[in-house]
Amino acid sequence: MKGTVLYGARDVRFEDVPEPKIIHPTDAIIKLSATCICGSDLWPYRGLNEIDSPLHMGHEYCGVVIEVGSDVKTVRPGQFVVGSFCLSDNTCPHCRFGFQSSCAHREFMTGAQAPYARVPLADGTLVATAEMPDADMIPHMLAVSDVLGTGWYAADAAQVHKGSTVVVVGDGAVGLMGVLSASQMGAGRIIAMSRHADRQKLAREFGATDIVEERGEEGIARIMELTDGVGAESVLECVGMETSMQQAVGVCRPGGTIAYVGVPHGVSFDGQQLFFRQQRMLGGPAPVRRFLPDLMNRVLEGGIHPGKVFDLVLPIAQVAEGYKAMDERRAIKTMLRVGE
Amino acid sequence: MKGTVLYGARDVRFEDVPEPKIIHPTDAIIKLSATCICGSDLWPYRGLNEIDSPLHMGHEYCGVVIEVGSDVKTVRPGQFVVGSFCLSDNTCPHCRFGFQSSCAHREFMTGAQAPYARVPLADGTLVATAEMPDADMIPHMLAVSDVLGTGWYAADAAQVHKGSTVVVVGDGAVGLMGVLSASQMGAGRIIAMSRHADRQKLAREFGATDIVEERGEEGIARIMELTDGVGAESVLECVGMETSMQQAVGVCRPGGTIAYVGVPHGVSFDGQQLFFRQQRMLGGPAPVRRFLPDLMNRVLEGGIHPGKVFDLVLPIAQVAEGYKAMDERRAIKTMLRVGE
Repeated sequence: MKGTVLYGARDVRFEDVPEPKIIHPTDAIIKLSATCICGSDLWPYRGLNEIDSPLHMGHEYCGVVIEVGSDVKTVRPGQFVVGSFCLSDNTCPHCRFGFQSSCAHREFMTGAQAPYARVPLADGTLVATAEMPDADMIPHMLAVSDVLGTGWYAADAAQVHKGSTVVVVGDGAVGLMGVLSASQMGAGRIIAMSRHADRQKLAREFGATDIVEERGEEGIARIMELTDGVGAESVLECVGMETSMQQAVGVCRPGGTIAYVGVPHGVSFDGQQLFFRQQRMLGGPAPVRRFLPDLMNRVLEGGIHPGKVFDLVLPIAQVAEGYKAMDERRAIKTMLRVGE
Repeated sequence: MKGTVLYGARDVRFEDVPEPKIIHPTDAIIKLSATCICGSDLWPYRGLNEIDSPLHMGHEYCGVVIEVGSDVKTVRPGQFVVGSFCLSDNTCPHCRFGFQSSCAHREFMTGAQAPYARVPLADGTLVATAEMPDADMIPHMLAVSDVLGTGWYAADAAQVHKGSTVVVVGDGAVGLMGVLSASQMGAGRIIAMSRHADRQKLAREFGATDIVEERGEEGIARIMELTDGVGAESVLECVGMETSMQQAVGVCRPGGTIAYVGVPHGVSFDGQQLFFRQQRMLGGPAPVRRFLPDLMNRVLEGGIHPGKVFDLVLPIAQVAEGYKAMDERRAIKTMLRVGE
């Protein structure tokens, strides 16, 4: 089959790769219903992460199980499944504590920008639906796998609750899902920082009550003005850069929480500054598995439409254009159709 | 009167200072029942904080109100009061959010290692008892002002609850109060890191279930062994140095919380490391005012005896020896008798 391989900065190819096979008895093989490109795929695409050898890209996925290893008990061929980008056994103490993304046997999914993929630790990673979802559900179910799960974790980690004042830093797909998640959790005010009209529109649709276009000190000043000089109790840092973290730190009230879900690149903290700002912080790769059943239900019940975040849909053979469009910010997030 | 003045490294003197006077209508003047030396006083004493001009030392206090400014409504002369080392109005949004140590009008108490002291923002800072406490209550009430309040905040910030596994890094007075606080909150297991027999004894008395003498990588390994390789869900970092913070980071489980209450000196964090450790963090000067009424009640009801942390009691004229004993680790914490 053909799959997506990244060779170096801005060199992504759709080319022959081996068919995935059961390697461990805990593996499953799925036929993807759709796949997509993640904002975090842009780090290596932009040359910001070192690449030792060609990378089989793709970690967001949903689809139909076609084969399972001999130890797999909870999913079977023919079932539609969604899995987390973090592979977990879902039985170790960290998993049982709700932090499957720190599973003792954690692996990160790869190779999902392809028609078929191997999912290790299938029992602990995949959640099956009772029935085969309609085709129009696929984008929304796919979004649950990482981008919604990560936005949801950001809101959860930031302790968003009914009536909260929330600031979302970053208007990428994860930031927009953070807005949606905060809204679902009943936040009273959701301030989205965004300078792009299309993203602002989507943010409003997902529940943002205010948009702040300013950045840096001006952005901080604007949000402090909007919050009567107090700041927000929950801040979702959905980028992972020094400037975005500074935004987050600048607008979070003392005793409030900053959740950071973009992998930090070049971010560091001075202990004494952090101490006197008195902000709670929690970051990390999202334990999407914790939220999967709930989020899949919300999608299937029609209450949320996270797949709206895919504003570009391409056949997977055009995956290189999908990366390019996201890199150039022409697209928020690219969905890739498979099996064409 | 005479008071305690720090001139430079290891140069602390008990000498003539002006009598405190009402300066603002929100001030109160108290006659101290006792005062004490804080671990944080050792930073400037050891020359680790720069001193521009002589410092009037002392920020832990309890005593009797002798005069109040014209705006003071909640305390009156003759009442016994305890106050926080952080002065707060207790009405601003940060105070109402429970973070009085980030009050919009926050000041830090000074000059309390003396027979009399001025307490600014008296209404927001002081809590009076219904009756004059017995003399044997004074050490315990004094401890509430900072050291117990800070240990309590550490346990609260670290989300200690019934059954929690807790690690306390630091066997100074605050660490020991962290042990006591975690015990009061119902922790199931409290592992105190300590190498001093006298402190270990007190830690056990305050509720520690395990003592770990090892430090560094060995200390981390020992605690991981004690927790079946999982780590602790709540870690109280009660020192403020790079090595102690590394201890804390090394033993906190993913999804667990590190509360850090020692002012960090030379501590920094790498964003990406912090991200992948997936530990919640909250530090800061303790909002003791939030806990004062509850902690004063616990003391008066005889349920806790935090004053046991004072293992050296001197007349205030010998304050220099009190600093020296703590600096040389001959004393955990020095209480100073006044009015002699």
